[in-house]
Amino acid sequence: MQNKIDYEKAIKTKYPEQVVVAIARDENGKANPMAVGWTMITSGSPPMIAIALAHKRYTARAIRHSKCFTIAYPSADMMDDVLLFGTKSGRDIDKLEESGCAHRPAEEIDSVLLEDAVANFECVLEQETVTGDHVVFVGKVVASHVNTEPKKRLYAIGPGGKLGAV
Amino acid sequence: MQNKIDYEKAIKTKYPEQVVVAIARDENGKANPMAVGWTMITSGSPPMIAIALAHKRYTARAIRHSKCFTIAYPSADMMDDVLLFGTKSGRDIDKLEESGCAHRPAEEIDSVLLEDAVANFECVLEQETVTGDHVVFVGKVVASHVNTEPKKRLYAIGPGGKLGAV
Repeated sequence: MQNKIDYEKAIKTKYPEQVVVAIARDENGKANPMAVGWTMITSGSPPMIAIALAHKRYTARAIRHSKCFTIAYPSADMMDDVLLFGTKSGRDIDKLEESGCAHRPAEEIDSVLLEDAVANFECVLEQETVTGDHVVFVGKVVASHVNTEPKKRLYAIGPGGKLGAV
Repeated sequence: MQNKIDYEKAIKTKYPEQVVVAIARDENGKANPMAVGWTMITSGSPPMIAIALAHKRYTARAIRHSKCFTIAYPSADMMDDVLLFGTKSGRDIDKLEESGCAHRPAEEIDSVLLEDAVANFECVLEQETVTGDHVVFVGKVVASHVNTEPKKRLYAIGPGGKLGAV
């Protein structure tokens, strides 16, 4: 049976929610990783992936600058890195440097791949649409990579940045 | 370490993927539920939820007709219903009737709520954007409901319509 309640309470039933790491280079060439929960595939052929970012996010600025971004599926091994990527801003620090997260240059776009991720998708920016207090960036996947070892994906398993494998 | 492979293989690392049921009334007044994996929240204030549907989907037509839709988080109890909602078309059958899935009228929009779902969000259509072979419909949430009993959400846990709680 259904009981009408406030959206803020109802949306807490969403967990586990997937997490991806979106990475784009800023105007100084610094590759900036950000943890993003609001993401979905939006096309099969050609393959496209969307992320929704708050207007003021440093990553939004970096994507507009470089016109491309990586979407990485973080592995359960990367919990500490993803917490840092989701709680610090690239305005203040170099998150890849600070985390020590293993990475290498992407192959088809000017971004990086995360070595310990489950998968990395290299995306070229296709479109940008405002929806309420967020901006949806849609990228076309131009190259895909998976980990040579089987890894579990990391998810948000509860409010307040609680992460875990599911 | 990352290994470059085809997108079709790489994207198989996405599981578990969330599943929602999108419900809209067609021009005959029939409420048509469809299982959708490509969905995300796109705004916090006002709350908005997006779904990506293939261009030809009956649900796309129904949403364009009624300008509103329900997003339900199916519970693990609803596996058989969700399989039917994801494999049959509302062009051919009345999926709510055929499944026997318990439902009642929505309160703020002309749609229905699924009684055994974890939660139901009543959405008014805000925008529609083409991205590749899918159309992204964004709805503003105008009412929210949760189950009076705690239930686990249903997810796609592997390719080929494999569903389960996580």
